[in-house]
Amino acid sequence: MHNFQVKNVFVGLLPAGGDLLTELERFAAKEGISAADVQIIGFADGATFGYYDDQKHEYIQKRMEGKLEIISAVGNVSIKEGKHFAHLHIVLGDEKGELRGGHLLAETKILVAETRITVLEGDELVRQYDPQTGLWLWR
Amino acid sequence: MHNFQVKNVFVGLLPAGGDLLTELERFAAKEGISAADVQIIGFADGATFGYYDDQKHEYIQKRMEGKLEIISAVGNVSIKEGKHFAHLHIVLGDEKGELRGGHLLAETKILVAETRITVLEGDELVRQYDPQTGLWLWR
Amino acid sequence: MHNFQVKNVFVGLLPAGGDLLTELERFAAKEGISAADVQIIGFADGATFGYYDDQKHEYIQKRMEGKLEIISAVGNVSIKEGKHFAHLHIVLGDEKGELRGGHLLAETKILVAETRITVLEGDELVRQYDPQTGLWLWR
Repeated sequence: MHNFQVKNVFVGLLPAGGDLLTELERFAAKEGISAADVQIIGFADGATFGYYDDQKHEYIQKRMEGKLEIISAVGNVSIKEGKHFAHLHIVLGDEKGELRGGHLLAETKILVAETRITVLEGDELVRQYDPQTGLWLWR
Repeated sequence: MHNFQVKNVFVGLLPAGGDLLTELERFAAKEGISAADVQIIGFADGATFGYYDDQKHEYIQKRMEGKLEIISAVGNVSIKEGKHFAHLHIVLGDEKGELRGGHLLAETKILVAETRITVLEGDELVRQYDPQTGLWLWR
Repeated sequence: MHNFQVKNVFVGLLPAGGDLLTELERFAAKEGISAADVQIIGFADGATFGYYDDQKHEYIQKRMEGKLEIISAVGNVSIKEGKHFAHLHIVLGDEKGELRGGHLLAETKILVAETRITVLEGDELVRQYDPQTGLWLWR
C-alpha cells in the first residue's frame, strides 16, 4: 500500500458533450494530478464499458444507447507510461431503474458529470504491465 | 472545477425511521455544511428514486417496497436557492441480490444509514437553474 | 455523528489470491486503523454476499462463481468486539454487464483489488450489538 496525504479536493462539472474518461484525464493532465481518488454521478448520452476476459487479456465491450443515469463512476487517477491515467468502474441506470455496468471505456458522452477528485500527494502511484494478468497494475 | 480543502469528516448513523434525503439535508443545515462529498451504506424500508426525462424535464419515479439493502448512496451536498441540498444516486439490493436504482427521491425510509460526510471548505458550490437541461447545475 | 480529521490515505493493491474482507481487516489490524472510509474497484474469482433477513436476524447468502468485475465495494472500518472490522457493500458485474450485489461476505477471492482507505482520527467508531435489529451498530 502507498501512503498519501490529501492535497486538495476538486468538485465540479466535467465539460458537457465530451467523453467522460477523456475529459477526466485531460483535467488530470492540466492540473498535474498524478494520484487521486474519484467519484462521479451524472447523466450520459450513451455509454461504453467492458468486462475483462482474463484468458484473451482484453475487454469485452458493451454498449448502451440513449440517455442514462450515471449512478456512479468510481476509481482513481495514477500514472501509466508517463501519462495521467484514469481507471473507473461505472454503473448506469435506464428509465426502468435497471442497472448495468463495468470498466469504463470511451465513448461515454457527458450530459452532466458531477465530479469529485480527491488529489493525493506523498507517494508515487505508477502502473506497470503485468504479463500474468495482462493488466497494468500499480508497482 | 471548484477547489476545496477537507474541513472534517462526519461518520455515523442518520436517524432510523426518517427519510434518507431529508435527514441528510437536516444534518447539513444543522451543521452549516455548504459543500460535501457523501457516501452511505445501509438498509431501508421502501425506496423511491428517479430517472431523468430530459424531454419533459422531470424525474420518472420508481418505487421499491420491502426491506432493501442500501448498496450505496453517493453524491454531494451543495447550496440550492439558499438551502442545503443533497444530490445522491442510490443502488438498492433485494433478497435475490438483484439491483435497481437511480436519483434518490423521498420517501426512502432509513432502517440503518451508515453515513460518511466529507465536509469541504474554500470555494462555493451553488446550484442555479439551467433552462437547457431543466436541471440545477453548479455555476 | 462522530467527527474526524483525515489522518492519511492508503492506496494500493490488497494481496491477490486472498479473501477481500479478510485482507482488508488484516491490513487494518496491521496498521492500527480503528476508523476509515473505504472504496475498492477490481476483479474477483467468485464472490459471496448477503441480504439481511431482519426477521431471522441473519444474512441470506448469495454466491456468484467465475471471474467478476468488482464494480465497487464501499464502506468502512471500525471496531467491533475489540477487533478491526470492515463493513462493505459490493456490486459485481459479469460478462454481460449485468450486476448483482449486497453485503460483502467471505469468500470473495481477490484477483485485483485497487483499494483506497481514508484513515480517520479524532473520535471513536465502535460497534455494539443492537437487540432490536440484530445488527452491530455504532454507539
